[in-house]
Amino acid sequence: MSEGGGRNTIGILGGGQLGRMLALAAHDLGLHTRCFDESADAVAGHVTQLHIDSFDHPARLDAFLDGLTAVTYEFENVPVALAQRISERIPCFPPPAALDAAQDRVTEKTLFRSLGIPTAGFAPVDTLAQLKAAVAAQGLPAVLKTRRLGYDGKGQYVLRDESDTAKAWGALGATDSSAPGGVGAEGAAPARAANLILEQFVPFTRELSIIAVRSEAGEVRTWPLIENTHSQGILRTSIAPAPNAPAAITEQATGAVRAVMNHLNYVGVLAIEFFQLGDTLVANEMAPRVHNSGHWTIDGSITSQFENHIRAVAGLPLGDCSMRDAAPSASSAMLNIIGRMPPRERLLAAARGRAKLHDYGKEPRPGRKLAHISVNAPSLRDLNIAIGELRAILG
Amino acid sequence: MSEGGGRNTIGILGGGQLGRMLALAAHDLGLHTRCFDESADAVAGHVTQLHIDSFDHPARLDAFLDGLTAVTYEFENVPVALAQRISERIPCFPPPAALDAAQDRVTEKTLFRSLGIPTAGFAPVDTLAQLKAAVAAQGLPAVLKTRRLGYDGKGQYVLRDESDTAKAWGALGATDSSAPGGVGAEGAAPARAANLILEQFVPFTRELSIIAVRSEAGEVRTWPLIENTHSQGILRTSIAPAPNAPAAITEQATGAVRAVMNHLNYVGVLAIEFFQLGDTLVANEMAPRVHNSGHWTIDGSITSQFENHIRAVAGLPLGDCSMRDAAPSASSAMLNIIGRMPPRERLLAAARGRAKLHDYGKEPRPGRKLAHISVNAPSLRDLNIAIGELRAILG
Repeated sequence: MSEGGGRNTIGILGGGQLGRMLALAAHDLGLHTRCFDESADAVAGHVTQLHIDSFDHPARLDAFLDGLTAVTYEFENVPVALAQRISERIPCFPPPAALDAAQDRVTEKTLFRSLGIPTAGFAPVDTLAQLKAAVAAQGLPAVLKTRRLGYDGKGQYVLRDESDTAKAWGALGATDSSAPGGVGAEGAAPARAANLILEQFVPFTRELSIIAVRSEAGEVRTWPLIENTHSQGILRTSIAPAPNAPAAITEQATGAVRAVMNHLNYVGVLAIEFFQLGDTLVANEMAPRVHNSGHWTIDGSITSQFENHIRAVAGLPLGDCSMRDAAPSASSAMLNIIGRMPPRERLLAAARGRAKLHDYGKEPRPGRKLAHISVNAPSLRDLNIAIGELRAILG
Repeated sequence: MSEGGGRNTIGILGGGQLGRMLALAAHDLGLHTRCFDESADAVAGHVTQLHIDSFDHPARLDAFLDGLTAVTYEFENVPVALAQRISERIPCFPPPAALDAAQDRVTEKTLFRSLGIPTAGFAPVDTLAQLKAAVAAQGLPAVLKTRRLGYDGKGQYVLRDESDTAKAWGALGATDSSAPGGVGAEGAAPARAANLILEQFVPFTRELSIIAVRSEAGEVRTWPLIENTHSQGILRTSIAPAPNAPAAITEQATGAVRAVMNHLNYVGVLAIEFFQLGDTLVANEMAPRVHNSGHWTIDGSITSQFENHIRAVAGLPLGDCSMRDAAPSASSAMLNIIGRMPPRERLLAAARGRAKLHDYGKEPRPGRKLAHISVNAPSLRDLNIAIGELRAILG
């Protein structure tokens, strides 16, 4: 297995379903993987070596790193300092600078704007006074969000009229836990900056994402544009190529991801989420990792996001990102299975046995992503029939 | 993972590349696997639990069986008695009767003929006198083979004229190692029956195979007919659908595999290899397991042979066996990588990054199957260009 040189043993920080699918892709390329996770239940452990320890003991990370020839990660909240420490010893991709840019909504949107990528209006908010000023300047509706560590709709509050200002501040601005009611004194900075962002509400027609991969040599390959449907802040369905997307929209998305990747000297897979407003895209956020809206690529495209991420990190040539079915109308869909597994028998019999199940091997828990199922069809009409059948089973 | 009932933990006898690919397919279905192998280097151990022990201690097999809900195997030389013992405790598929039929070339051809499936002329040969009589009755050329345990062209001797008779007997008939030169006395039975078969040589135009899967309920699904090219007795290339195959040929193959499966009350994947002579097929042999000529199904068909074998063994609904690309001219090819791994970089860059590598993680050794690479194309012409490019890299 050591022939061909290159990076043969890849460490993955995080051993959830993304780490698991990265490890599965690496197996076929003849590469070894080792996942690092704080939980012994991490599901990547079913398919590869699992190293269990805490991220709080950086010195102990050395045992994990021993023998690795490259390191990557499955989640964007890896501490930047940790990624930097690793990258001094071993190639670590995507680069720590990408983590830094993606972990803070203000830094992220500032980067987008500096590259000419439109975003919603936004303002950093550390105090109630700043919140009021931002509301006055931007108008409502708007969304107050934590700058860091928000995911799946958590850490967000929608302001519809002025009376929501205090409520939003109460929900998210309460960083000084000793203050009664958790609301910081108006005008005075709290003990710790609230570290929020107020974003103008975007009256979007739909949500789209673009996923691309970049090699160390600077080659960029992009999968078809994806349409995403969320519910309760969690992704439910992705369809690719995004139906009825004008060429101008696809070009905007492709240009944006390419600009961000080149700017960061990026290596690996990057996802950017957009809101579509008519013929314009507004960038919402980016993820410096394989992304839930790209899970359809396992079955729908020639090279999956997992395989191409591993190829890029290992210094191997990138694979083709086209649809597997060469027909111009061929489409692919992915549905998340959340909280409860429906009977496997029904899923596997659906769509005349054409649906592809990817069960992550997790214990069911409300709101937990347990699996995804994808289906491909030669036309959007056929795809929608299959989606309807699968949705009926998912309930 | 325990929801939906059924058989959730599957034992696989053998942990080579077939066991490995079965385990990889099972992961996505949310099933657990455990492979049994005599070697600690068995490559399924990279991707699933590996139980190392010897088949010579059936009592110790109990530790392997503990907690399993079904058992299958990756090689057809599993002792029939062992499979029968297992099937008294745990569902064991394919059924032991299929092993029994496939392990002996005389039994196998007798079964084919009893079901109306044409075979080459054949005669069991235990003595030199029987060999001479068979040569006289059938004519030459013919092939003398061991009835059991032959694979990849081993245990075969081609007789072109009468003078080859003694040589062939010397090569394969020498079962009594105390006899000088190893040749049994003419007319007298040797100490142990030689257990050979003389098969009429078939002047075939090409080799084809059909692969099908059958569920416990008796549903049969068949992949497209496959064209195979061997060299030095080892499969080199498979192409599906077999180019320019008349409908009558495909129907013969499909009818044959269905007849054998129904006769054996078969569960799982079965492969039958044929010789084509003009518009007729002659069955050569069958394999009661996933088959090298079906490796293209991982990337070329909607459900791979590995996934459908696991589905059948686990009692789950069968998946669609159609090509992934719905275009009528879509084709798929698989090339074995034997003995030496070419540079991974060249393989992955070939065919504009469209080729799919499946590296088994083995140490290179002459004649050893180390990996396969497959490629799909919208037409046979495009496929042949990609095959040419890959062959140039394989050397």
